[in-house]
Amino acid sequence: MHSIPQLQQLVEENIKNSLSYSNAHGLYEPITYILGIGGKRMRPVLCLVAAEMFGMDVQKALHPAVGIEVFHNFTLIHDDIMDQAPLRRGNPTVHTKWDINKAILSGDAMMIQAYSLIAMSEHEVLPAVLKLFNETALQVCEGQQLDMEFENRKDVSISQYIEMIRLKTSVLLAGSLKLGAILAKADEKDANHLYNFGINAGIAFQLQDDLLDAFGDAEKFGKQVGGDILSNKKTFLLLKSVEKADAETAARLAKYFFNNHLESNDQKVKDVLAIYNSLNIRVETEKEIDLYFNKAMDSLKKVSTSEESKRNLYAFAESLMVREF
Amino acid sequence: MHSIPQLQQLVEENIKNSLSYSNAHGLYEPITYILGIGGKRMRPVLCLVAAEMFGMDVQKALHPAVGIEVFHNFTLIHDDIMDQAPLRRGNPTVHTKWDINKAILSGDAMMIQAYSLIAMSEHEVLPAVLKLFNETALQVCEGQQLDMEFENRKDVSISQYIEMIRLKTSVLLAGSLKLGAILAKADEKDANHLYNFGINAGIAFQLQDDLLDAFGDAEKFGKQVGGDILSNKKTFLLLKSVEKADAETAARLAKYFFNNHLESNDQKVKDVLAIYNSLNIRVETEKEIDLYFNKAMDSLKKVSTSEESKRNLYAFAESLMVREF
Repeated sequence: MHSIPQLQQLVEENIKNSLSYSNAHGLYEPITYILGIGGKRMRPVLCLVAAEMFGMDVQKALHPAVGIEVFHNFTLIHDDIMDQAPLRRGNPTVHTKWDINKAILSGDAMMIQAYSLIAMSEHEVLPAVLKLFNETALQVCEGQQLDMEFENRKDVSISQYIEMIRLKTSVLLAGSLKLGAILAKADEKDANHLYNFGINAGIAFQLQDDLLDAFGDAEKFGKQVGGDILSNKKTFLLLKSVEKADAETAARLAKYFFNNHLESNDQKVKDVLAIYNSLNIRVETEKEIDLYFNKAMDSLKKVSTSEESKRNLYAFAESLMVREF
Repeated sequence: MHSIPQLQQLVEENIKNSLSYSNAHGLYEPITYILGIGGKRMRPVLCLVAAEMFGMDVQKALHPAVGIEVFHNFTLIHDDIMDQAPLRRGNPTVHTKWDINKAILSGDAMMIQAYSLIAMSEHEVLPAVLKLFNETALQVCEGQQLDMEFENRKDVSISQYIEMIRLKTSVLLAGSLKLGAILAKADEKDANHLYNFGINAGIAFQLQDDLLDAFGDAEKFGKQVGGDILSNKKTFLLLKSVEKADAETAARLAKYFFNNHLESNDQKVKDVLAIYNSLNIRVETEKEIDLYFNKAMDSLKKVSTSEESKRNLYAFAESLMVREF
């Protein structure tokens, strides 16, 4: 069995080789750029881990696995336009470095390249692979659509938020795992257990991210604390607070998140964190994370392969559950 | 054999049915909208014509044929953003009716839906279908990239222009024909003859469009005469003029197309048309169109099926060659 770092290495090399066809066309420069500024390659690694669990030679799953990474990076390019994000992994976003037109078109080309890699699956499993990938890709778009709609809505419920992060984040992680299972011709039940593991681990991962944004150590996690608060993002923390708050506290939150206010950014973050603390939101969020984490573990247990074969996925799940902030 | 209008009717019905899954998500409204504002459905019809030439039941080719139309309409949504076009077929473009973010994201979803329809090809031919579609789709992006680059270049050659329209327009027409041939399990040689027919007919079609823009009857063709001249488009007519012009005439063209000038729009169109006439550009363009048209005919003749089976394609090619302006 390969270690996670070994698999990351394989993915990196394959990305470099997959890019070698890039010619002089300006169309391809942003693709090389975005794939070159790193990332943990979590999705292709999960695909390879799953394939290996069912006895497949990971080399044979590499192209479609990298296809998922190329698709993921395409969504980053287009999402960054929509979110008007200046930076991605500390580097200028594609539409900032070039322009919006180039970011749209190179993103489109990248989605096609993702399909080209996905299509390199063995012919026998190709129809099932495409069905999974098409459904997953469309759900990722639905998630982004909901995320954008939520920005202008005051009535987002916690279950709607969970549904949004399921679509925007979880289905691609789950789809990566299921892709590996399908490529390895695993039993359909096992493939679905892995998918459910991915869905629930993905939700736990996103909730953890929400928590770190508010309570994490800025230095440790390389992010500005309170970024979500400053950008008025309706995270689980906010929605839970609104649910638990008395009328006076709810009005203060509404003032900060839905209206213009006179307080400074520092003051806003300080006040909102104080409200989160007074409502015990950190513990509430940790409870929710545990709920999804445990669901993920239950699904993983149901997979019919040996416990030894699941070691990488247990390690992956544990790595998501950072507890030292 | 079905007539072209019968095939158009089949495609329309299938588009409506393919759209019936659209749910409440705002993501899908622009997709229904763009597919609802018409068009001649030239690409799926060509696919069905080709499939029928090789004895296939067109009903069985409908889903992938419509996939091509969905892909084509996706490119229209994204191209209209890049070109800042306010109107498409007389209706507001998607980014005008909604906004740019919605146009980006709905376009993305539409490309995925195109792949879902393409993936409904019979499993036996699916790898070949995907290979063709991926190559074609990427070339369409390359064509759009070149078209955008040409806007800011003064040194575009005629052969570079032909290459751009080959990528931007012809490969999708040619790919539609070849898709039909592959679905019908035609001989590879025949599939490639049809592809070459499509490439050359597509170039003739685009050159014809350039000609109509300058010399067409505005009422008859529903377009503003001189639109390409006003938007400084480097069409075949301009590039040929630059090639043939003496220094003084070339300088006048450069003033109009590459520099700011004081003349009114009407004056500009009048002057440029006068230059085109003095250089006999209409005849030059017609010669070029005939060249590609004849190449197309030669390729069609090489297809091994009966002359009777090619009737629809001969009619299609003739319909492109409007001579009454």
